Amino acid sequence: MSRKLYSLCGSDRTRPFSPHVWKTKMSLAHKGLDFDVVPIGFTEIPGVEDGATTLVPLLRDGERLVKDSFDIALYLEETYPDRPLLFAGKGAKATARFVEGWSQTTLHPAIARIIIQDIHDSLDPVDQAYFRQSREKRFGMSLEAVAEGGPAALATFAEKLEPLRHMLKFQDFLGGAEPLFADYIVFGAFQWARIVSPQSLLQPGDPVTDWFERCLDLHGGLGRTVTAA
Amino acid sequence: MSRKLYSLCGSDRTRPFSPHVWKTKMSLAHKGLDFDVVPIGFTEIPGVEDGATTLVPLLRDGERLVKDSFDIALYLEETYPDRPLLFAGKGAKATARFVEGWSQTTLHPAIARIIIQDIHDSLDPVDQAYFRQSREKRFGMSLEAVAEGGPAALATFAEKLEPLRHMLKFQDFLGGAEPLFADYIVFGAFQWARIVSPQSLLQPGDPVTDWFERCLDLHGGLGRTVTAA
Repeated sequence: MSRKLYSLCGSDRTRPFSPHVWKTKMSLAHKGLDFDVVPIGFTEIPGVEDGATTLVPLLRDGERLVKDSFDIALYLEETYPDRPLLFAGKGAKATARFVEGWSQTTLHPAIARIIIQDIHDSLDPVDQAYFRQSREKRFGMSLEAVAEGGPAALATFAEKLEPLRHMLKFQDFLGGAEPLFADYIVFGAFQWARIVSPQSLLQPGDPVTDWFERCLDLHGGLGRTVTAA
Repeated sequence: MSRKLYSLCGSDRTRPFSPHVWKTKMSLAHKGLDFDVVPIGFTEIPGVEDGATTLVPLLRDGERLVKDSFDIALYLEETYPDRPLLFAGKGAKATARFVEGWSQTTLHPAIARIIIQDIHDSLDPVDQAYFRQSREKRFGMSLEAVAEGGPAALATFAEKLEPLRHMLKFQDFLGGAEPLFADYIVFGAFQWARIVSPQSLLQPGDPVTDWFERCLDLHGGLGRTVTAA
C-alpha cells in the first residue's frame, strides 16, 4: 500500500501512543482510508522520508507527504471530499482550532505532568535519553521534578473537563450527533494517557468517560486495538 | 417595529450589560436585522411577555418568542438562512457548544468573582437585593466573600485565555477569517466586564485584546455604543 503513517512507539512497537498520531489514525479511519502503520521511536523521526519532519504524525499518501495532525485532517478533507466529512463546513474548521488550543494548553500540560514518568519508562534507552533532554528543556526542570507535580495535576484534572461536560448535555460528540475531527483532537489526549499509563484520568459515571468510550468504539473499535496500560 | 430584545440593565438604562444579551445583539446585527432594545432590571424579567422567561435574553420576533442566546442564534439561522451565516455548517453548530461550555465554565466564574461588586453597585436597590440573594445562593457564600476572591481571579485570568491565543495564531476570529456565533459567545463575556467594571481584564499587546477590539469594531461598532466603565 502506498499510504503510510509514521507512528511513535516505545520499546513495544505494537503500542503507538502519540496523541497527535491517534488524531490522524482516527481521521483516516473516519474517511474509510486504509493505511500501514510504520512504528518509530523518538530518535528515528528525523531519519524518515529524507528528513521530512522532526515531529509525528507524518503521512505518506502516494506521492504526497503531509505532516501535522490538523494539516493532515485539512488535506484529507480536501483530497477525499466525497467521503465522510471531518469538519462539516468551514465554520467547523475554524472552531476546531479553538478545540485544539484548549486541548494543547489545558489537557496536554496536565496529562504530561501526570504520565511523564510512565512515558519515559516505556521507551528504548536511546529514546529515554532524548526524551529526558528535550522535556527537561521544555519544562525547565528535571523529569523527576515534573513528575512530582503529577499527583496534584491528577487531583485537579477532572475540573478541567467542565467545558466538555457542558457540551455533552446537548449532544453525544463535539461534532454533534456524530464525531468530527474536533472529537479526535480531544480523544488523542486521553488515548495517549490510556496507552502509556495505568493511572485513571477518567472516572466511571463521568459523561466525559462515556464520550471517550464511545470514541473507543468508533471505526470498528480502532482505539481498542491497543489495550489500556 | 415588531422585533424586540429584552435587555438587562442596572440603574442606567442606557448601559445593558448581560453577556448573554450581547451575544444576541451581535447575532441580530450579524444577520442585518433591526431590533428595539427593551431595557429591564433583574426583578422585571419575570413580568415581561406574560412570564415567558426567568432569564434574558428574550427575543420577540413578530409572533415568535425565543429565549436563550444559543437557541436564539439557532432560530435566527433557521429563520433567516439567506443572510450571513452565524454557524457556517452543522459542524460549527455542534462545536460552538464546546465554546459555550468553555466560556460558561472557565471565563464566567472568574469574571463573576472579579466584577461581582461592580455589578451589584450598578443596580437599582430592588435589583441589588435580588442579586445579592440569588448570587449568595449560587456561590454558597456572601457577596463580599465572593468579591474577596476577585484579586486572585484577576491575577490568574490571563492564563485562562491560552486556548484563544493558540487559535489566534492561525486566524483572526473563532469563525476563521470572519466572525461567527462562536466569537459572540466569548465576546459577550468580555463585553460584560468592559461595561460593568473599570478593572482591566485584558492587557495591551495580548492577541486576545486585539481580537476583542476587532469584535468591538464589528457591525458599525455596535459594541462601542456603550462606553467602557
